Amino acid sequence: MTIPTDPETGEFYRAPNRFADRITIDGRYGWPVEQGRYRLVVSRACPWASRALIVRRLLGLEEAISVAVADPIQDEQSWRFTLDPGDKDPVLGIKYLHEAYYRADPDYQGGISVPAIVDVPSGKLVTNDYPRITLDFSTEWTSFHREGAPDLYPEASRDEIDEVNRGVHADVNAAVYEAGFASKQPAYEEAYGRLFARLDALEERLSGQRYLVGDTITEADIRLFTTLARFDAVYHGHFKCNRGKLTELPALWAYARDLFQTPGFGDTVDFDHIKRHYYQVHEQVNTTRIVPKGPDLSGWATAHGREALGGKPFGDGTPPPPPPEQETLPPQW
Amino acid sequence: MTIPTDPETGEFYRAPNRFADRITIDGRYGWPVEQGRYRLVVSRACPWASRALIVRRLLGLEEAISVAVADPIQDEQSWRFTLDPGDKDPVLGIKYLHEAYYRADPDYQGGISVPAIVDVPSGKLVTNDYPRITLDFSTEWTSFHREGAPDLYPEASRDEIDEVNRGVHADVNAAVYEAGFASKQPAYEEAYGRLFARLDALEERLSGQRYLVGDTITEADIRLFTTLARFDAVYHGHFKCNRGKLTELPALWAYARDLFQTPGFGDTVDFDHIKRHYYQVHEQVNTTRIVPKGPDLSGWATAHGREALGGKPFGDGTPPPPPPEQETLPPQW
Repeated sequence: MTIPTDPETGEFYRAPNRFADRITIDGRYGWPVEQGRYRLVVSRACPWASRALIVRRLLGLEEAISVAVADPIQDEQSWRFTLDPGDKDPVLGIKYLHEAYYRADPDYQGGISVPAIVDVPSGKLVTNDYPRITLDFSTEWTSFHREGAPDLYPEASRDEIDEVNRGVHADVNAAVYEAGFASKQPAYEEAYGRLFARLDALEERLSGQRYLVGDTITEADIRLFTTLARFDAVYHGHFKCNRGKLTELPALWAYARDLFQTPGFGDTVDFDHIKRHYYQVHEQVNTTRIVPKGPDLSGWATAHGREALGGKPFGDGTPPPPPPEQETLPPQW
Repeated sequence: MTIPTDPETGEFYRAPNRFADRITIDGRYGWPVEQGRYRLVVSRACPWASRALIVRRLLGLEEAISVAVADPIQDEQSWRFTLDPGDKDPVLGIKYLHEAYYRADPDYQGGISVPAIVDVPSGKLVTNDYPRITLDFSTEWTSFHREGAPDLYPEASRDEIDEVNRGVHADVNAAVYEAGFASKQPAYEEAYGRLFARLDALEERLSGQRYLVGDTITEADIRLFTTLARFDAVYHGHFKCNRGKLTELPALWAYARDLFQTPGFGDTVDFDHIKRHYYQVHEQVNTTRIVPKGPDLSGWATAHGREALGGKPFGDGTPPPPPPEQETLPPQW
């Protein structure tokens, strides 16, 4: 995998998403919401894709939208279905995710990313627009939500959620990559500085309140969680985000454990996929492709004490039941 | 710098020391102890060399044995005196440490390592035999020890010190390198396993006693300290020794701080040299040569509470005075 950086400044650039169609109730992009029609392709390694896995679980969309899990190790043709029998996704019948991209646009030249939603009948990619995918799960797929599903993007809080998300995106979700993929010292230090300044601000914010916005879980918590879950296992060492570990920020660490232990969060996290992906794919960062044995992950199961801050994780709703058997992960430590 | 590993197993091999002459009271190797005759060449980055810096400080040998500090960044000709005016060591008049090696043996083909002791009149290397150098400082240079110098290698405890040193050498001092330089997963995991098993045993041992052997500082403490001082700054991330940080082992972390805050230990530690050396020299491990900004080092100055365990750091002796002005380091954080 080649990591694109600016030859002068050493800054890493994330390519924009090319496929930005939406699946909506009114079908105005040509893709109406419809039970069983679409397949969500993810890697459990990927923080952007993992948002979609969590939202799908929390809202109970498992039956409405099936899921394909790619091998955490991309090859030179990118994400592939080598975890499945015959190295093919059993529903889409393809070996590589790029096949769905090229069916949607034979001239496509960009990167192949997850999460991706594929239209099963045509085999075409519909969208890889990750920030929109989860919001549409919340707002367009409402008729398929389970009973007791939480409102992860409540109308009254959207401005605040969007604002928190902007800061978390720039200075946490994206900044860890900008630090880790920087090819020059100043570019790295700039990203590192923004990251820890933002984590300090979040530590402060979360010292007095259980969730980022309001007193229930929202989209904002999901977006922060997927980076926090990877922090000590990958970003601290591999990406040199090492002022300290997540475990050294007491409120953020308790907040992350609280979410991890909430049904729909931790049951989507595969630390083996996470560690193997980052350490084996980024040969420019880790030439030996050796995967660290650490850190000790058992702390994720320890008591967090966040109930004392009040809050109702699911608002007036309920937690989701355990994941379907075929999506149940092995013990993580 | 090329890291030599076994092509089959991926194990890292440390080359033996070729120059094993000793400087003794009786001069039986041709090198009698003599004030001002020898120059100790170190890198402050190097844990093996740093042992000699600490012992020299504790024993008050600064005037008897002068010191040359190499640039922490070796070039293709290895250790060099680019921190000095004209890029030359002012006493030996050489630009590279290898000049002293080749003066001692023009046919020498091996590696160039620190610590190295050079005979100033002839410019020849006397020894790079690091485990012997510090013991000889304690046992052969006695007539130059300061008043109140501790006995770091007391006769009655030598068997126990030697035994502790064997375990610490194999499973701590050397194991971090064997983990970090391994080129294959099993070789890495084997070293990682030994390292943390030994650290757990040391954690247990140091929970009930202030120092490793007896109730005073000995050579055993110095050998463990120089690896612990580098643990969170380098070995945890760069060498993938990441089950947890030193700060997560309460007794060992307090023990390390206790020593760091003891005159003669922390005043030899240059974290800038340490971090730049490892992250910039080992391009096979860190291709971008970016030096992490973390970790936050200020914890080294925090209270350790180890006085409660009793013990007398210097036995019946006294702490050394501050280092000579030209050896005083800038603030470390």
